[in-house]
Amino acid sequence: MEPGRLNAITDVEGVGVGHSTLVEGESVRTGVTAIVPHRGNLLEEKVVAAVDLFNAYGKSTGLPQIMFEGVIETPVMLTETLNTWRVADAVLDYHRERLGVSPGSLNPVVGETNGGFLTDNIGRHVGRREVFEAIDAARSQTGRGVVAEGNVGGGTPMTGYGFKGGVGTSSRVGGGFTVGVLVQLNCGSKEDLTVAGVPVGREVRLPEAPPPSPGNSIMMVVATDLAIESRQLWKVAKRAALGLTRTGSYGGNKSGDFTIAFTTGKREPETRSGGDGFLSPVYKATVEATEEAIVNALFKAETMTGFEGHVRHALPLDQVEEVFGRYGRPLQK
Amino acid sequence: MEPGRLNAITDVEGVGVGHSTLVEGESVRTGVTAIVPHRGNLLEEKVVAAVDLFNAYGKSTGLPQIMFEGVIETPVMLTETLNTWRVADAVLDYHRERLGVSPGSLNPVVGETNGGFLTDNIGRHVGRREVFEAIDAARSQTGRGVVAEGNVGGGTPMTGYGFKGGVGTSSRVGGGFTVGVLVQLNCGSKEDLTVAGVPVGREVRLPEAPPPSPGNSIMMVVATDLAIESRQLWKVAKRAALGLTRTGSYGGNKSGDFTIAFTTGKREPETRSGGDGFLSPVYKATVEATEEAIVNALFKAETMTGFEGHVRHALPLDQVEEVFGRYGRPLQK
Amino acid sequence: MEPGRLNAITDVEGVGVGHSTLVEGESVRTGVTAIVPHRGNLLEEKVVAAVDLFNAYGKSTGLPQIMFEGVIETPVMLTETLNTWRVADAVLDYHRERLGVSPGSLNPVVGETNGGFLTDNIGRHVGRREVFEAIDAARSQTGRGVVAEGNVGGGTPMTGYGFKGGVGTSSRVGGGFTVGVLVQLNCGSKEDLTVAGVPVGREVRLPEAPPPSPGNSIMMVVATDLAIESRQLWKVAKRAALGLTRTGSYGGNKSGDFTIAFTTGKREPETRSGGDGFLSPVYKATVEATEEAIVNALFKAETMTGFEGHVRHALPLDQVEEVFGRYGRPLQK
Amino acid sequence: MEPGRLNAITDVEGVGVGHSTLVEGESVRTGVTAIVPHRGNLLEEKVVAAVDLFNAYGKSTGLPQIMFEGVIETPVMLTETLNTWRVADAVLDYHRERLGVSPGSLNPVVGETNGGFLTDNIGRHVGRREVFEAIDAARSQTGRGVVAEGNVGGGTPMTGYGFKGGVGTSSRVGGGFTVGVLVQLNCGSKEDLTVAGVPVGREVRLPEAPPPSPGNSIMMVVATDLAIESRQLWKVAKRAALGLTRTGSYGGNKSGDFTIAFTTGKREPETRSGGDGFLSPVYKATVEATEEAIVNALFKAETMTGFEGHVRHALPLDQVEEVFGRYGRPLQK
Repeated sequence: MEPGRLNAITDVEGVGVGHSTLVEGESVRTGVTAIVPHRGNLLEEKVVAAVDLFNAYGKSTGLPQIMFEGVIETPVMLTETLNTWRVADAVLDYHRERLGVSPGSLNPVVGETNGGFLTDNIGRHVGRREVFEAIDAARSQTGRGVVAEGNVGGGTPMTGYGFKGGVGTSSRVGGGFTVGVLVQLNCGSKEDLTVAGVPVGREVRLPEAPPPSPGNSIMMVVATDLAIESRQLWKVAKRAALGLTRTGSYGGNKSGDFTIAFTTGKREPETRSGGDGFLSPVYKATVEATEEAIVNALFKAETMTGFEGHVRHALPLDQVEEVFGRYGRPLQK
Repeated sequence: MEPGRLNAITDVEGVGVGHSTLVEGESVRTGVTAIVPHRGNLLEEKVVAAVDLFNAYGKSTGLPQIMFEGVIETPVMLTETLNTWRVADAVLDYHRERLGVSPGSLNPVVGETNGGFLTDNIGRHVGRREVFEAIDAARSQTGRGVVAEGNVGGGTPMTGYGFKGGVGTSSRVGGGFTVGVLVQLNCGSKEDLTVAGVPVGREVRLPEAPPPSPGNSIMMVVATDLAIESRQLWKVAKRAALGLTRTGSYGGNKSGDFTIAFTTGKREPETRSGGDGFLSPVYKATVEATEEAIVNALFKAETMTGFEGHVRHALPLDQVEEVFGRYGRPLQK
Repeated sequence: MEPGRLNAITDVEGVGVGHSTLVEGESVRTGVTAIVPHRGNLLEEKVVAAVDLFNAYGKSTGLPQIMFEGVIETPVMLTETLNTWRVADAVLDYHRERLGVSPGSLNPVVGETNGGFLTDNIGRHVGRREVFEAIDAARSQTGRGVVAEGNVGGGTPMTGYGFKGGVGTSSRVGGGFTVGVLVQLNCGSKEDLTVAGVPVGREVRLPEAPPPSPGNSIMMVVATDLAIESRQLWKVAKRAALGLTRTGSYGGNKSGDFTIAFTTGKREPETRSGGDGFLSPVYKATVEATEEAIVNALFKAETMTGFEGHVRHALPLDQVEEVFGRYGRPLQK
Repeated sequence: MEPGRLNAITDVEGVGVGHSTLVEGESVRTGVTAIVPHRGNLLEEKVVAAVDLFNAYGKSTGLPQIMFEGVIETPVMLTETLNTWRVADAVLDYHRERLGVSPGSLNPVVGETNGGFLTDNIGRHVGRREVFEAIDAARSQTGRGVVAEGNVGGGTPMTGYGFKGGVGTSSRVGGGFTVGVLVQLNCGSKEDLTVAGVPVGREVRLPEAPPPSPGNSIMMVVATDLAIESRQLWKVAKRAALGLTRTGSYGGNKSGDFTIAFTTGKREPETRSGGDGFLSPVYKATVEATEEAIVNALFKAETMTGFEGHVRHALPLDQVEEVFGRYGRPLQK
């Protein structure tokens, strides 16, 4: 299937992404990313949503209510594990101060992965300022809707397959629909990394064996424009884990593998006959876009030094090109 | 079935409960309650746990990980909706400052109900001080293990069936096991209240029809001492919703009806033959203890005036006694 | 809330119920019940459906596919445990022989409870003839749509709370919707039976303590006419277990407590604003109709003698009337 | 990870597999496969089990009870869709006639995929004789425990990725445990087939584009010897879908992707510290063994002609070898 114009989650019309990245001194390498289905007040104009808990080792907030009500009412925030609750709390502040509403109840959706290898996570440096910056950026995203990838936003300190990980995005366009995926990649072991079927992780050499990270998770956010219901969107969300495993992960026990999906609901399916059969290409698009979003995170992330002098090396792209040649595939990317 | 010595969740050996209650000025009526399965460091000595989402309209944190890992690693905290995330964040502080550990990952379990009728909830007045006080109290609970009920801790501003609600607890002792339940009651409509089968809500008169609350939820915490696995404990947890409905609730759509269960695992079941058949009396104990915990919350709560002058009346016990007489039941309680 | 005209599941327009009852010799006391959402070919005109597994100790067929696809494509059949698979197989025959289609795939929905106390269940006497008869009757139900209750169809050999159980039905009409429930009652212990809050089971005397049944389950079928989606209908289905517990059951471990719900989808909700909030009265209707359907099964069933001379006594209605008097309630039923 | 001695599910000690294959005339190409965790009476000696419903488009019986009770009490049977209920019914006969017990309740576990492309499935040719033969064979499997693959048992008429599919098996041995997987492969499109990362489906040529099958599903059975509980085994079961997707499937909407897992429970995990962390290599073993079981099904199945003259071609292994060469991988298999 073909990617959209930007090959990003923002190919789904109306979706905005904003990052706030915090790199200070030797120990702070963190941030937060906001994804909005539209630029309005979500609490007033909720969108249909769903959640897949493939391996729910993680601290995300807001997921149970999505499972029952089938909607989200705040931006989806992605950040570092120990900042989860401060980010959720600041989303409430955002409503008061930026949107002028004081809801007596609110269901902030915050996903997280553990960046403690490169950042002083117990310091919980992500606060109101960063949350406001990320949501503002997401809601006002202009022009081409390009999404920065790699060491940005919530992905700043993350590790993927022993290499520098972080944020990645991709999209696929099918007959009458678009699917976009954004991931915050922080899982996997070097020897498992597979790119387009090629065992890149085993073939590529690093200066040293990558030291293990304290965390090992991935947050996957799936957006589409199809007018489907939450139960159907849940089945779409379940396919993101399939895209993940195609890059090599087998869902290690402490890998929090969460998928949050929403739809802007702007396009009617071309056909609804045959039950949910029309969803099959949407599943395929989700698998492909998730796989590529993960690869994009690895391709865009750069080597980073952080907390306690820890170093995480970027995936060496020159070696990848050489490996692809040996495996009968010219690298186009 | 018979209650334990205290008719409280603390009849389960090792379990401690602590409240921090915050009543200040005219607008602050809030607090937080901590329940600990034992007084040690839970992060080091996790206990088996399970969750039932009967109607997951709510913001509780920490539940997905319990579903997958089958353990809890922090105290169970109950508070007011908008304080959820600050409480979760403060639980991490507690680990650093009281327990001397700086975990790079932690799964705080916080349940909530919406107390905005009687307290200025958007002010989020529950913070580190209250969280520390509640956990300290729970861990050091001495003597008879009596649990304060009614307008205390997380239950301070809550409403139950149009009357003043809050915290209630009860227990049942079976052959070789104890079940204890603690609830934070904030759900139901006056006309639905049923006590021991008697339609108390319809019969009792208040000075005025109770104004609706913004929230409508209940948190139920079930503790036992049986050495059972998480899957079995999940089936126990599911029975709490049955106890709830016997007091009249039918699980209104915005009623977040959550049950969190844990076991200290100190007693072997007398028999394990016949699969899970030995659980049936544990289910019955859970239904009964939940039903009575809810009634106890109503019987112990006192009339409260709070935010914006709102008043919530206590259940008039003299009228209850009279109604019981008419329905052929002398009131023993 | 008020019942519909018939106080039966057939108050939901289009719904038909048919029984085939098999009482032969001393050992055969069995049958099958069919419930159809409409009289057409369901495989061509599927209806939205949902399932709640409150306690899935049971052999029902067809439920997983309903959970994922959100529809049913065959009548809902209720029968005796060991006949489950023959009934499912015969539903396929029905399609070939009565509907003239030979589907290469079909998802028959069959619920069951264990009637081995009064019938030779291992003989599996329910076959094609009975299945055809029940479905034909359901599809051609004319006139007043009255549903026979008690010792009929799948409910023929069943036990409820130690008394003779079987089929019961009831309905409730709300603002713009109807909910109908039909149960096949086979669960509960005498001492737990509660009718309208009165502990009837403890008060009523039988000639002998009721011997235990081998089985202990209930199938609950909920029908509505509201145009809602499967996720919403699932939340409706979850309320049936609440109605069950109001009659005294606490969901014993071997009690298979299943709910299958479907909607004819003929009426638009009067409002959809506020998310799923409009469902609350539908929940209440479901709780009430389920509670009454169970009571109706007990009130209509008659004493039966069957397999190996086992006797199951009907609930003695004269005693019930007297008990109600003592508990301050004139019996209207 | 390394396969076991047989590279089959029977590498898990005690596990037996038996097939009954029915190839008659031009239209009957069907059968049934039985898998037993041990050769005793399972109803007396149940084993711990779990189920993953990745995409529950299917008619399998017995799954809900496994989810709640965490055990299986019959062999796991795999057959053709429309034979599901006759097979379940015959499993009961087997208990009466071979095991000498007449259980009043039994939970037969039958998985299915749709073989209507090559067999007259509406004829439902699999009956008592075949069920008895398969279970007898599984229970008496002697000597080396070799498992026939390809066009055998329940897999006889099945299709995989547009090629001839059927039964495949594989195993992996880890530190202190064995995982074995057996699949009945009937899903996927030719263009999606991926073997060890190589896009074999797109590269291989067939005499004609493979006509679509009416069905599109896979049954995956996972066996292990680790003494773990049902909740943990469920997480193991979830990994089978990851192995599936590595061969190219993205879980099309009508693909019933079911996993049934059981454990003989004969080996204690080497360590239980760190919660469920010890499961990670078990997950990896499951992903790998599932992926290879699917490939083995394709490599062993032979071209078949059946119902209405339909032909399904075997995967052309010579072409596969050539393709592997071009993609930098000598084929060892």
